[in-house]
Amino acid sequence: MIVLFTDFGPGGPYTGQMKAVLARAAPGVPVVELADDLPACEPEPAAYLLAACAPAFPPGAVFVCVVDPGVGGDRAPLALSAGGRWYVGPDNGLLAIAARRADDAAWHLITWRPPALSASFHGRDLFAPVAARLARGEAVPGTPLDGAAAVGADWPADRAAIVYVDPYGNAMTGLRASQLPEGAMLAAGGQRLGRLRTFSDAAPGAAFWYENANGLAEVAVNRGRADRALGLRVGTPVRIEAGGRAG
Amino acid sequence: MIVLFTDFGPGGPYTGQMKAVLARAAPGVPVVELADDLPACEPEPAAYLLAACAPAFPPGAVFVCVVDPGVGGDRAPLALSAGGRWYVGPDNGLLAIAARRADDAAWHLITWRPPALSASFHGRDLFAPVAARLARGEAVPGTPLDGAAAVGADWPADRAAIVYVDPYGNAMTGLRASQLPEGAMLAAGGQRLGRLRTFSDAAPGAAFWYENANGLAEVAVNRGRADRALGLRVGTPVRIEAGGRAG
Amino acid sequence: MIVLFTDFGPGGPYTGQMKAVLARAAPGVPVVELADDLPACEPEPAAYLLAACAPAFPPGAVFVCVVDPGVGGDRAPLALSAGGRWYVGPDNGLLAIAARRADDAAWHLITWRPPALSASFHGRDLFAPVAARLARGEAVPGTPLDGAAAVGADWPADRAAIVYVDPYGNAMTGLRASQLPEGAMLAAGGQRLGRLRTFSDAAPGAAFWYENANGLAEVAVNRGRADRALGLRVGTPVRIEAGGRAG
Repeated sequence: MIVLFTDFGPGGPYTGQMKAVLARAAPGVPVVELADDLPACEPEPAAYLLAACAPAFPPGAVFVCVVDPGVGGDRAPLALSAGGRWYVGPDNGLLAIAARRADDAAWHLITWRPPALSASFHGRDLFAPVAARLARGEAVPGTPLDGAAAVGADWPADRAAIVYVDPYGNAMTGLRASQLPEGAMLAAGGQRLGRLRTFSDAAPGAAFWYENANGLAEVAVNRGRADRALGLRVGTPVRIEAGGRAG
Repeated sequence: MIVLFTDFGPGGPYTGQMKAVLARAAPGVPVVELADDLPACEPEPAAYLLAACAPAFPPGAVFVCVVDPGVGGDRAPLALSAGGRWYVGPDNGLLAIAARRADDAAWHLITWRPPALSASFHGRDLFAPVAARLARGEAVPGTPLDGAAAVGADWPADRAAIVYVDPYGNAMTGLRASQLPEGAMLAAGGQRLGRLRTFSDAAPGAAFWYENANGLAEVAVNRGRADRALGLRVGTPVRIEAGGRAG
Repeated sequence: MIVLFTDFGPGGPYTGQMKAVLARAAPGVPVVELADDLPACEPEPAAYLLAACAPAFPPGAVFVCVVDPGVGGDRAPLALSAGGRWYVGPDNGLLAIAARRADDAAWHLITWRPPALSASFHGRDLFAPVAARLARGEAVPGTPLDGAAAVGADWPADRAAIVYVDPYGNAMTGLRASQLPEGAMLAAGGQRLGRLRTFSDAAPGAAFWYENANGLAEVAVNRGRADRALGLRVGTPVRIEAGGRAG
């Protein structure tokens, strides 16, 4: 399976061009889009979403990760093997958290270059062909890198901020719920929020946080949009507070 | 064929996670998205759109229907066999109109539960795996329910309101055109609209109604957006009036 | 491979209905969406985007092109063979530029009609089934047309205007970069823009033009949205000026 994780936007022409390359280079391999709507040109929040979602994908999955504002410049293309999955993308930290969560992370510098490489669409010209090779079981066309890739190496293990706002207006933090203290409350957008199990445990219109289906602490409003109700967007800080129980 | 019918929003991370489950559990079965952009958390209008669109899909198609504000609460997961197709989704009425249009509707309570069931994403954890089983020709993992599921059983056969606004701004009603009286006009957004055959029969900028490609009466403006021109959105009421001819 | 190129909008119900038809009529043939988000009902700008993107698709690809405000009226359905690829769509000029760029363009009038043809969705009822036949290697169900189709025949070879704004806000012109004079500058939205190689060669916030990954001159802002910064949208004119170098 090949998984697309990009800021290409839904509907636009880039995802289709990637899929056309993949259909030819890895025929018969399922291609799914994990996200097309990542905040443009912001690898850091996307890194936390990727690390949270990846474990639900099958072993052997190859993630093609393109949030790549430095495309065409001197940033390096990387392939990461971690937790039985492959990740291909730029060296701007986008893959850093997925690497840190694994105890077997192995980085590679992709040295292969296609006959024709555009200056602005390495997703199509470089990352997709490499992903197809990995999905076919071939070796990384590159060389091992010692230790972790530098970018993102100093980012925190969990990020106390909104990293993604979903189409319902739910605001995912970069905090794994499993890492938060028992009874923790989250302060976000001027409110102090208790933890609930899920939406239907909250009164309509009430804000709360809960552990979402990918393990992240997520700020939500039952039958409403948390982003609008609390003024949240990607990057808004969240504070962890010792707490009582949810109201 | 497996058909996704959801309010997940285009571009976001939920459709891809569903597809990843389906690719593993029903390999080789085509998966198509009928809609990703249903109004969030509103099963009633979506029920009329589903019933209108389903007949164009092939016999044996399995619809995975997720407009599910009650996820994680005490609502029940259902499987419906109707008109040679399967429907899987929550018991909030989303499947009710598809059932009513068939003379062979058979409801089942899904009793199977996956080893890990999140509190907020039964689409991925429960409905998609069940749909994969049905697409593979296996039996429903559940028990027959006598009679119709209760929710939606008292909804009207046709709904005199806007049930979906498409990306062009065309406003579909929940009324089947075939059920309207000869010469009927529709009053919506303060205008009284006559029936035309299609867009090119209207003057540019003129509003009208017509039978859309799925059999619903749809309010439209030639080369314009009916939603903006007439102030229509999902839920706006429509009145059926005896009428003359379209202007 | 079958390629969808439409103004259906991301998330809505039309792309899925097309895919359902294609999955049945051309099983096993990959279907990719090149664009769902073309400006509604504007075939002219879309024609330049199609001609620019098509060469990156494999020989034998069949493009189903639906920007079709005249659907259901007296416009004719066409099939075009050009440059080793097929194009199916309405006779409103949408296919005209792709034809002009090839030296082997051959037009056909599609005379086949399905048993049931809706008045508003020929993409599903007519173009998709014809595309499936072509993808299976069958003959065009129609008759050859002498010479070029009339609509679009007088459009310029390159169009000095914005033809598409991508999800990042980059504004593609209808000008092939390879056809512009050495050192040309582009005047758009009140600014005079020099040419750079790619985004990372511009200062953050600076506007420039560059040759995009499909060969078009594109107006962009590094780490910003050119559409908002310069007030650009589809149809905004662009002027080619003799120039110095980019700033």
